[in-house]
Amino acid sequence: MRDVAVIGVGLTKFGELWDKSFRELISEAGSKAIFDSGIGGLEIDAMYVGSMSSGRFIGQEHIGALVADASGFSHLNIPSTRVEGACASGGLAVREGYLSIASGLNDVVVVGGIEKMNDVSGTAATETLAMAADQEWEAFFGATFPSIYAMIATRHMHEYGTTREQLAQVAVKNHSNGALNPFAQYQREIKMEFVLNAPPVAYPLGLFDCSPVTDGAAAVVLCSLDKAKNFTDKPVKIIASGQASDSLALHGRRDICTLDSTVQAAKKAFKQANVTQKDIDLAEVHDCFTIAEICAIEDLGFMKKGEGGKAIDENITNLNGSLPVNTSGGLKSKGHPVGATGVAQIVEIVTQLRGEADKRQVKDAKIGLAHNVGGSGATCIVHILEGI
Amino acid sequence: MRDVAVIGVGLTKFGELWDKSFRELISEAGSKAIFDSGIGGLEIDAMYVGSMSSGRFIGQEHIGALVADASGFSHLNIPSTRVEGACASGGLAVREGYLSIASGLNDVVVVGGIEKMNDVSGTAATETLAMAADQEWEAFFGATFPSIYAMIATRHMHEYGTTREQLAQVAVKNHSNGALNPFAQYQREIKMEFVLNAPPVAYPLGLFDCSPVTDGAAAVVLCSLDKAKNFTDKPVKIIASGQASDSLALHGRRDICTLDSTVQAAKKAFKQANVTQKDIDLAEVHDCFTIAEICAIEDLGFMKKGEGGKAIDENITNLNGSLPVNTSGGLKSKGHPVGATGVAQIVEIVTQLRGEADKRQVKDAKIGLAHNVGGSGATCIVHILEGI
Repeated sequence: MRDVAVIGVGLTKFGELWDKSFRELISEAGSKAIFDSGIGGLEIDAMYVGSMSSGRFIGQEHIGALVADASGFSHLNIPSTRVEGACASGGLAVREGYLSIASGLNDVVVVGGIEKMNDVSGTAATETLAMAADQEWEAFFGATFPSIYAMIATRHMHEYGTTREQLAQVAVKNHSNGALNPFAQYQREIKMEFVLNAPPVAYPLGLFDCSPVTDGAAAVVLCSLDKAKNFTDKPVKIIASGQASDSLALHGRRDICTLDSTVQAAKKAFKQANVTQKDIDLAEVHDCFTIAEICAIEDLGFMKKGEGGKAIDENITNLNGSLPVNTSGGLKSKGHPVGATGVAQIVEIVTQLRGEADKRQVKDAKIGLAHNVGGSGATCIVHILEGI
Repeated sequence: MRDVAVIGVGLTKFGELWDKSFRELISEAGSKAIFDSGIGGLEIDAMYVGSMSSGRFIGQEHIGALVADASGFSHLNIPSTRVEGACASGGLAVREGYLSIASGLNDVVVVGGIEKMNDVSGTAATETLAMAADQEWEAFFGATFPSIYAMIATRHMHEYGTTREQLAQVAVKNHSNGALNPFAQYQREIKMEFVLNAPPVAYPLGLFDCSPVTDGAAAVVLCSLDKAKNFTDKPVKIIASGQASDSLALHGRRDICTLDSTVQAAKKAFKQANVTQKDIDLAEVHDCFTIAEICAIEDLGFMKKGEGGKAIDENITNLNGSLPVNTSGGLKSKGHPVGATGVAQIVEIVTQLRGEADKRQVKDAKIGLAHNVGGSGATCIVHILEGI
């Protein structure tokens, strides 16, 4: 397989963007990424787009073609394909773009991720998100994601002594990072008491343990490494892409506290990259709920199972800790436009590895990891990137 | 890029399948393909699934993981990814599976396509299908696909003298083929008068000019050509995969009678395969409406633009003609479960190239082409396959 690099990144502001349409968001992110990459536009061989449920959120399928069209590329007849893997749609789209270059078919590929979630009313957003769970065994009976992750959390607390405060601290940390990210939905710090006293959603998770409903888009330009130098002097190499699946419903897992898809995707990624957990300078992990970040850092192998809560207590994952996690603010504070999230994680890692993360810059960051999960863990995709 | 072969194919019966669920359909097609391929199952490196609008049709997203799960593979943590490109979702899924093997990453990949369309009530199926059109410029104003293709048809009649009878003859021919296909939704011949006197849908298209609403699934097993002989003595090589996009809405095209995405996808495919139109022994083309088949055979370059109707008159595309088209019965008679269609086309070509098409077998078929379109032509994917 050929080596592949990220040569450009682009992001819209994340938030409740009532004044921007789906088309405007994706073309804003895409054009920023293209401008950032140094390509002119005619070099683009293909486009991939991650979007979870455009059919439900905006009444539109055929998203690949829509995005090529909205971006002004339809007259070039560039192949454009949508990829869906629930909240991992963005990460999977990056992988397909990566593979299409690694195969030798394409040289330059633009990958976008997008979700416009706030245009539906009432409980429609929560109901649509629940379609990432098992409709017949979970969603149909009223199990939405807060309740599913709440079950993971209570079991984790029971099994490993993880505390309510440790969960809350994840939110506090991620808001502290998000306060430094001009693209984040919530650019403000929050205090522990605020999280603990927030309205309960599903015990032990309160309002501030849950990622928000967000509109937003992200894009990256990928290029074969050998051609990357034609466009940029700061390519970031994708040194691994690992993907795995698991049962759709939580009850099908061997252990509901362990996301085996994360364990397996990480195993593949670390093997391909030929690095270990110790080599990772920062990680963006899928903190759709606070418990999800604790599970993620364990299942990625940064510590033993059950020790994620302790790591939070020890501030290991803080911006100035030994393993900064979710420097962007994570899904919690940056926001979680589901199809965009996996691409936005890559944007953050690239920004950090280029040394362009301003007030949230991790010192001497050389290797970063992005971890994107679909549903409660039926899909996981792990990318490892290296600045060169 | 490595060479890739199809080593197994599987199909469910197409039709109104009230007694079978989405999960049952995809696992039936998948297990048939796996059994046909000679693999045991543990060799599978990845899965891809084409599905257009599972979110609208069955209230379920996260289809990649669902399919791995329903097929009994979730405990193996096999990566599984859904691909969406409206009615071209199946063809695009085949392409992603193909690229993942061509890249060198995977050796054995199962690709499925599925749509369960009859479980929604009232006009929901038509409304959901309209989401493959441009929601903001077409669907919102009531333009559904029959009306969009009717505009193409009237323009084609005006521009090239194509007749109502030529359109009807496409349906007659495809039903004649479908009558020989045990998997087809409508296994019966129809007469010209029947088509001409059918209830009008959108002039000039009547009920029998339109493909039906169908439940069904299809699957293929792909393998690197060098390893294919470990499993089968009848591999069929994928000698080209060409994809292109165009504007989502019809009004954005330079000429509404020409699907530029087909023209460009075919150009790429013929170049990659290093064959010409004359080398093609049979073609499955995207006849979602009778006019679509006429446009397809022109835009694929089998004849000059405007001469498709004449070719129908001359019986060139009949089962015993010089270029048999839609030997399976096509979308018209076999049925059109949108996400499954592109995969089912590959199943038909492989069946023919292996000489296993029974009463509808094309004599000495060596090279076949599959042409799958999304919407009114915003996405097109062309595959060319060769028996070896």
